[in-house]
Amino acid sequence: MANDKKVRAGIVGGAGYTGGEMIRLLIHHPDVTISFVHSRSNAGNPLYAVHADLLGETDATFTADLSDDIDVLFLCLGHGESGKFLETTAIAPHIKVIDLSQDFRLGESVNGRSFVYGLPEMQREQIVAAQNIANPGCFATAIQLGLLPLAQAGLLTEVHTTGITGSTGAGQSLQATSHFTWRASNISTYKVLTHQHLKEIRRNLQLLQPGFSADINFVPVRGDFPRGIWVTSYLQSDLSLEAAVQLYKTYYAGHPFTHVSDKQIDLKQVVNTNKCLVQLEKVKDKLIIHTIEDNLLKGASGQAVQNMNLLFGLEETAGLKLKSIVF
Amino acid sequence: MANDKKVRAGIVGGAGYTGGEMIRLLIHHPDVTISFVHSRSNAGNPLYAVHADLLGETDATFTADLSDDIDVLFLCLGHGESGKFLETTAIAPHIKVIDLSQDFRLGESVNGRSFVYGLPEMQREQIVAAQNIANPGCFATAIQLGLLPLAQAGLLTEVHTTGITGSTGAGQSLQATSHFTWRASNISTYKVLTHQHLKEIRRNLQLLQPGFSADINFVPVRGDFPRGIWVTSYLQSDLSLEAAVQLYKTYYAGHPFTHVSDKQIDLKQVVNTNKCLVQLEKVKDKLIIHTIEDNLLKGASGQAVQNMNLLFGLEETAGLKLKSIVF
Amino acid sequence: MANDKKVRAGIVGGAGYTGGEMIRLLIHHPDVTISFVHSRSNAGNPLYAVHADLLGETDATFTADLSDDIDVLFLCLGHGESGKFLETTAIAPHIKVIDLSQDFRLGESVNGRSFVYGLPEMQREQIVAAQNIANPGCFATAIQLGLLPLAQAGLLTEVHTTGITGSTGAGQSLQATSHFTWRASNISTYKVLTHQHLKEIRRNLQLLQPGFSADINFVPVRGDFPRGIWVTSYLQSDLSLEAAVQLYKTYYAGHPFTHVSDKQIDLKQVVNTNKCLVQLEKVKDKLIIHTIEDNLLKGASGQAVQNMNLLFGLEETAGLKLKSIVF
Amino acid sequence: MANDKKVRAGIVGGAGYTGGEMIRLLIHHPDVTISFVHSRSNAGNPLYAVHADLLGETDATFTADLSDDIDVLFLCLGHGESGKFLETTAIAPHIKVIDLSQDFRLGESVNGRSFVYGLPEMQREQIVAAQNIANPGCFATAIQLGLLPLAQAGLLTEVHTTGITGSTGAGQSLQATSHFTWRASNISTYKVLTHQHLKEIRRNLQLLQPGFSADINFVPVRGDFPRGIWVTSYLQSDLSLEAAVQLYKTYYAGHPFTHVSDKQIDLKQVVNTNKCLVQLEKVKDKLIIHTIEDNLLKGASGQAVQNMNLLFGLEETAGLKLKSIVF
Repeated sequence: MANDKKVRAGIVGGAGYTGGEMIRLLIHHPDVTISFVHSRSNAGNPLYAVHADLLGETDATFTADLSDDIDVLFLCLGHGESGKFLETTAIAPHIKVIDLSQDFRLGESVNGRSFVYGLPEMQREQIVAAQNIANPGCFATAIQLGLLPLAQAGLLTEVHTTGITGSTGAGQSLQATSHFTWRASNISTYKVLTHQHLKEIRRNLQLLQPGFSADINFVPVRGDFPRGIWVTSYLQSDLSLEAAVQLYKTYYAGHPFTHVSDKQIDLKQVVNTNKCLVQLEKVKDKLIIHTIEDNLLKGASGQAVQNMNLLFGLEETAGLKLKSIVF
Repeated sequence: MANDKKVRAGIVGGAGYTGGEMIRLLIHHPDVTISFVHSRSNAGNPLYAVHADLLGETDATFTADLSDDIDVLFLCLGHGESGKFLETTAIAPHIKVIDLSQDFRLGESVNGRSFVYGLPEMQREQIVAAQNIANPGCFATAIQLGLLPLAQAGLLTEVHTTGITGSTGAGQSLQATSHFTWRASNISTYKVLTHQHLKEIRRNLQLLQPGFSADINFVPVRGDFPRGIWVTSYLQSDLSLEAAVQLYKTYYAGHPFTHVSDKQIDLKQVVNTNKCLVQLEKVKDKLIIHTIEDNLLKGASGQAVQNMNLLFGLEETAGLKLKSIVF
Repeated sequence: MANDKKVRAGIVGGAGYTGGEMIRLLIHHPDVTISFVHSRSNAGNPLYAVHADLLGETDATFTADLSDDIDVLFLCLGHGESGKFLETTAIAPHIKVIDLSQDFRLGESVNGRSFVYGLPEMQREQIVAAQNIANPGCFATAIQLGLLPLAQAGLLTEVHTTGITGSTGAGQSLQATSHFTWRASNISTYKVLTHQHLKEIRRNLQLLQPGFSADINFVPVRGDFPRGIWVTSYLQSDLSLEAAVQLYKTYYAGHPFTHVSDKQIDLKQVVNTNKCLVQLEKVKDKLIIHTIEDNLLKGASGQAVQNMNLLFGLEETAGLKLKSIVF
Repeated sequence: MANDKKVRAGIVGGAGYTGGEMIRLLIHHPDVTISFVHSRSNAGNPLYAVHADLLGETDATFTADLSDDIDVLFLCLGHGESGKFLETTAIAPHIKVIDLSQDFRLGESVNGRSFVYGLPEMQREQIVAAQNIANPGCFATAIQLGLLPLAQAGLLTEVHTTGITGSTGAGQSLQATSHFTWRASNISTYKVLTHQHLKEIRRNLQLLQPGFSADINFVPVRGDFPRGIWVTSYLQSDLSLEAAVQLYKTYYAGHPFTHVSDKQIDLKQVVNTNKCLVQLEKVKDKLIIHTIEDNLLKGASGQAVQNMNLLFGLEETAGLKLKSIVF
């Protein structure tokens, strides 16, 4: 793609966590230019007034205006707000929309726009041909990446899942459960067995294993760290460990961000990257699957860029060769 | 017990984590005097040379000598070492032994000494009459306190358990998984479905619910904090939430350290105390039980003091009215 | 003091951080009963509805009423609010007041009540004879305990001080700088060289070294932990290390909570206790003094209890033999 | 430099922290290929066996062999080991050496190789023309970047500096002060006023302000986080805040990684990047300078890549457009 043919991107909701990550990723993306970053409350201010780490990277400012002179629009809005935005705002038909909220993940459409669920490890072919993408949820991504190969093989049984999330998953609003004094060195759970992501997970898995109706028992845990999601799932399975590893390695063979590790994994191996690592264990008749991701990247903005790359025929990894924090 | 008739305690392994906590608890216990703190490698040094926070609390020193002029001996040794110690060391018969290792939790005996498993919420009557106590494991305590009322009612079914532990659970030796750079803001699992505490848990629960043979599926997680254990268990149950809460409140009514909370709990509510809080939820046919404790106190040294109190007819809470860290 | 002659305490502002710590300390104080905990917004609720760690410790409730049937009143209010409270509320003359705000630390009085600055390591004799106490600030306590012996000896010169505080120092209100996502693994400074505690520090030190007018250069740092204050001060001095250590040990000889350590100290040695540890170093012509304390205890509520003990002729350490968190 | 003329790099000591960061940076550097990563103990193992986050990025292995078929050699060895390596190993004369240890920062040479101190914000012209680079220390970089403009203007007076470092600064060896249980939520100091980096700082500053002989009083603090360095320095100065800001902005105008912030900074703005942010304050006659950097990047491996870019005429920022961790 020639320099004068870069993908022109607009970002709505650029002052939040996922909006900030979109800026950080696109600013160095070789095939993209950011046309505008929309934020009503911050209009006129430099981006670094909100995202202070951008000082020295860009002098661009937030704008209250939308422009149709773009190729793709990223919606980094809260749940419910994306739907309202698309209902009340005229978006030129040529513009592709990637929505990071949960508003269109269950097949909803708006003003004639229908959305493809954007998990590239499952829907890559549909994404390539799509006009609009519903970007998956953070927990939904990590849990599904641990289960897709089994579902494809029709081997899902009742699933028992623990998921531990960093505080960024709760967004930037000030809440009792995001107060440093409370959360430091603390653990708690929320929405046990009732988390809203279970809907998109079940819907998607059933596409691969149509009759699957057993429970997915999900215990979400608030972790004592800002970034990342750890998921451990286990279920009854006749597969040997070797057969399971082979199944997973085959499934993920062509996918540049998801890898099966033969060694024990730990969360910081993927923090600040778009990767997902998968590790398998077998104990008696139970197959255990661990997955890790950065909730703001593979679980949100990074996956949105990956989807954009697919939408526009770019290299799937373009702009996503990120240095891990490691420590 | 008159003031001049204080219980005289000896501590073996006083330089480790649980040994240090024994000292911190007994030093202010109104009915106990510490007769000696044994440590071969630190003999002659003041206690505060190893446990620097004791500066200003005591000028006592470690000793390499054991004395029979005591009433109770606390063994704060590594797993396997307690057994060796009692095999090779003559302990006067009048001395009661409280062992914090896992060496005697499954009914083992040594030199004619047999041990009562020391979970006061289940074995209080046997403890009161016992000579030797096998102090339960930290995870074992937190998991059992979430299951005892169900087991007594014969209502245990297959159990699914997540347990998250602070780094002190791994002791003070330097390991890759206790390196600050690695562990800070990190998550990992270990011994998934194979943790050694499952043996003492199953053995004890079967005493209450003899035929129980379903799996206890336990996912142990290394948490990003020093102290405390969070456990969430769930299982199929016909009990309503109200009936379950009633069952638990009745079971724990006479127990001063274990309380049922009607509100969501979080780990720091019990850190640096001997308490265990229990919280229940019901989602469809699944009963969810959360329990929290300080792994070094209710999960080790605090429970050892509680057992000592019972052994010697002291108030069960003596020396254990501890200020929570809260934050 | 006989059981029926316990000191009767009232607490105003019991829903905040220092108010909660007051409750936690007084609830187990052998010579005190809590007569009431005042909070308008929480009136009628059990204390554990706000301070959840108190579940199982007490069933007492908050009240909107004040009573004169007490011996001592603790004011755990924000800065400025204590002054207003005492201006507008009639407090019976026999009631002693201990104020934790900064409203009366510089010699202010209200309705005929004058206040003694309550740093027992300096003002113990005046405190014993006082009616009202202005409890020192957290940073002010830690910095002064590092300088008092030098001031008494007339040896203060320009002071260079770094102080690092836990997040509890900022109270329980939700702020950008107390958001977990922001503060975890982060460092920042505030009020550099202009911190408000410098006034009470200078005022107090000048009582010991009247002509002292050189700068106290104080760099306050927001630390990445909830509890505790670390202070390092250095200044030009002709004292040898030995002479300085001797000076400090002599000064603090009769004080049960402040101790000079001959070894390197670290913050967690005092967290969750009322202690202050002091460590000295000498490099060329500079004397270096490190001090550590728990900002909510020796820096607030613990020191308030210590002052109460002195006011009522109790043992200075009564109710303050606290177990360190250590880890 | 044409695509087929990439700089060929060798890394010695690739199993350590700075070696790992070198790999992470060079693996995605557009103008570099890694010819070998040397490690005797890990020879034959894949890089991801040691640096597990590299799984999926590269299948390269460690080697015990050195090759002369490279353009630049990075020495990521401990202090003292670089000197020994260059004494005992024949390195072809055409190979440029960038040493990350402190062995050659004070003008030392070995086997005819002399080293240029590699702080691009001061020595860029010499670096461009150099054969060998002594990469500055992490604290030395952060402290100097706060003082260079003043030194160039001849305005340095006695400096008072607090520096807080993440745990990665202490390397990957297991030590008591890097034990998670100890370090979490803890603070301590070390080498107060005697830190070894003072030598290279003074030597370099004197090149700009020849007569400067006043003290640089440096209090190094162990912080409770893995990555990053915060430095606050203050000194007596007649400059107004405006004049100081102008002086700093002018000095750093042509430098792509060091920026003056008009707003309060916090450490995480630069973590996982090669940037340094500078913020100034003025209180009475004292000028206050805050600087922040990632100790492993701008303080070590990132600066080494920056130096390599200068040595080979590449864009100074090539391979260093890194996404900040932010949270």
